[in-house]
Amino acid sequence: MADQKTCPPLTSDSIRAAYPLISPYIHQTPVLRSKTLDRIASTAQEESALKGTAFEGQKPATPVFRLYFKCENFQRIGAFKARGAFHALLRLCSVLGIDQVRKRGVTTHSSGNHAQALALAAFALNIPAHIVMPSISTKSKIAGTRAYNARVLFSGSTEPERVAMVEGVIKETGAILVPPYDHPDIILGQGTAALELENQVEDLLKASGDEINPRGGSTLNAVITPLGGGGLLAGTATYFSSKPSTYVFGAEPSFEGGDDGRRGLACGSRISTVSTLTIADGLRTPLGEVTWTVISDQKKVRGVFAVTEEQIKEAMTLILERLKVFIEPSAAVPLAVILFDEEFRQIAEKEGGEKGWDVGVILSGGNTTVEAICRLYGEK
Amino acid sequence: MADQKTCPPLTSDSIRAAYPLISPYIHQTPVLRSKTLDRIASTAQEESALKGTAFEGQKPATPVFRLYFKCENFQRIGAFKARGAFHALLRLCSVLGIDQVRKRGVTTHSSGNHAQALALAAFALNIPAHIVMPSISTKSKIAGTRAYNARVLFSGSTEPERVAMVEGVIKETGAILVPPYDHPDIILGQGTAALELENQVEDLLKASGDEINPRGGSTLNAVITPLGGGGLLAGTATYFSSKPSTYVFGAEPSFEGGDDGRRGLACGSRISTVSTLTIADGLRTPLGEVTWTVISDQKKVRGVFAVTEEQIKEAMTLILERLKVFIEPSAAVPLAVILFDEEFRQIAEKEGGEKGWDVGVILSGGNTTVEAICRLYGEK
Repeated sequence: MADQKTCPPLTSDSIRAAYPLISPYIHQTPVLRSKTLDRIASTAQEESALKGTAFEGQKPATPVFRLYFKCENFQRIGAFKARGAFHALLRLCSVLGIDQVRKRGVTTHSSGNHAQALALAAFALNIPAHIVMPSISTKSKIAGTRAYNARVLFSGSTEPERVAMVEGVIKETGAILVPPYDHPDIILGQGTAALELENQVEDLLKASGDEINPRGGSTLNAVITPLGGGGLLAGTATYFSSKPSTYVFGAEPSFEGGDDGRRGLACGSRISTVSTLTIADGLRTPLGEVTWTVISDQKKVRGVFAVTEEQIKEAMTLILERLKVFIEPSAAVPLAVILFDEEFRQIAEKEGGEKGWDVGVILSGGNTTVEAICRLYGEK
Repeated sequence: MADQKTCPPLTSDSIRAAYPLISPYIHQTPVLRSKTLDRIASTAQEESALKGTAFEGQKPATPVFRLYFKCENFQRIGAFKARGAFHALLRLCSVLGIDQVRKRGVTTHSSGNHAQALALAAFALNIPAHIVMPSISTKSKIAGTRAYNARVLFSGSTEPERVAMVEGVIKETGAILVPPYDHPDIILGQGTAALELENQVEDLLKASGDEINPRGGSTLNAVITPLGGGGLLAGTATYFSSKPSTYVFGAEPSFEGGDDGRRGLACGSRISTVSTLTIADGLRTPLGEVTWTVISDQKKVRGVFAVTEEQIKEAMTLILERLKVFIEPSAAVPLAVILFDEEFRQIAEKEGGEKGWDVGVILSGGNTTVEAICRLYGEK
């Protein structure tokens, strides 16, 4: 990656500068709304749902939500990761010169959306890519990566095996490592989703007059994104850091300690290893060093909330059936927080009042299969 | 319904006139594309796939397709039916006067999307609606209909029981019957989906320059829609009847005689009863008298093709996983024809040549559940 010393600062202006660079290569994804989901989110939970939580015995909150779903499942390669990958490569080319980058090539190790995102960006810019994938990766992901002419190398599935193979590739070819999230260029690229979202919501609010937001208002009260390695949340928080009236929240799975972000914030230091098999498989990674510096800044991220596997599944069902878009489980985690986290709902009730909150929800990706979904719901 | 003598003629101009009437009440649904689906559709079938068909032993066709998916699953109530219902009620009001229609109310019997569509349109126009649903209807459909303040009456599940109950409602209240498809006002309303699709594709082709359609061309070569009662296909064919360079095709399930359209065309007369439990549950109905007159006109509909349950499931999987939109099985039938019907593919290969065909595909609706999908794929 580009030396961090050459990187633009982590500010909303840097995201504004990143946007025209990458926009020829990415989709402006749509923002969808659903009156039914607004109604469900604006209905109090059953008192029984609070049993065994810190809110047991309290009256469930009745916040008012108007939700704006940013559909990055329609992004190229089916996830927001295309934004960061294009920005990282374009920045590399501007620092090293495109000939140098093409001569050396790029590499990463990933079993997920980052592999395809880097393969796509390298293909579009005519840069050789060497992608290390665990040999147990699903066929469709391997085929998806190869479809962009990337060289796919298979490693064992443990972190040390994957890292060793990437180091071998670098030694052999001189390829430049492009990590999945922990780098300013990646974070700034992901932040462009927040920029688009804000502009689209402003357009919607203007066009609708009083219909959507009956008390006026011209911007989002809050934005909530999934939190895994932290690229998307850090990018979103960086974008809104210049707009203190928009709060940014993160959403994690709590299963098997997948709530490393929340736990790290509670103890004041980053948790660097996580081992969870949560169904939100894009969120199984710990925060990185750079993403941690952004996310642990309370002026940038107001809070991180975690939800159970059942809550993620319920939110996913609603997004599939009501919003009619196909998403992977990780993308449902923010809506699960909105629907089921009583602390979050109390904040929104108290601060939003009768007027309520306009909340942006980033649907991070849609790379799953019917088979995987049926397996998921069969396990009930 | 409005007396058919008062109806506008079944022409594209009548659809153009219908559009501004209904557009304040409906969504302009997006048109989506997928390079992966284009590639799959433009790849020859395996020779083994032609075994046991009339094409056995022939070289599989290699047509070139660029597909434009019109996402009526994002329409209000989750299906194109909202268009016809609004048009029917607005036309009724213009003929009888809104006070008269509000006094009498409207009624229909339906277990599916038409029930919700009529309930929504009646609610929006402040007209009482009496919807007869079989008592075995799913809870979500009953709740969906009641959400629009409709009076829901439960009948037995056979056709005579439902008809008898509707007749009782009419006798009791004076309500006006709004049938699901077999009326010019419904057909003209459904045709507005074709009008939007054509405009959106023209905009896409203009904006893309040479990128999408490398040989130029400014309109669709073909449009293909699901065929059940025939409202959507007849509306689409009516719209394109003034544009002979765009062919219109229908797509049916073949299971248990669900291909009544194809069989009727083959023998030259409408088949008026169908009894199939195809997974494409929106397409279990026979063509109506009015829709038949349009669909049996070879200048309007060039052909109707039928596919198997497995082919529908394969096409549905691809739309879910690749296009990332949530659809009901009926909506997958046209893509199944494009992918698997060798006769259709030969026509496209022969007439499209190297340049290929730009094909509009109407995704008719998205009203299904995760549970139903898992049941469907579990039955494999």
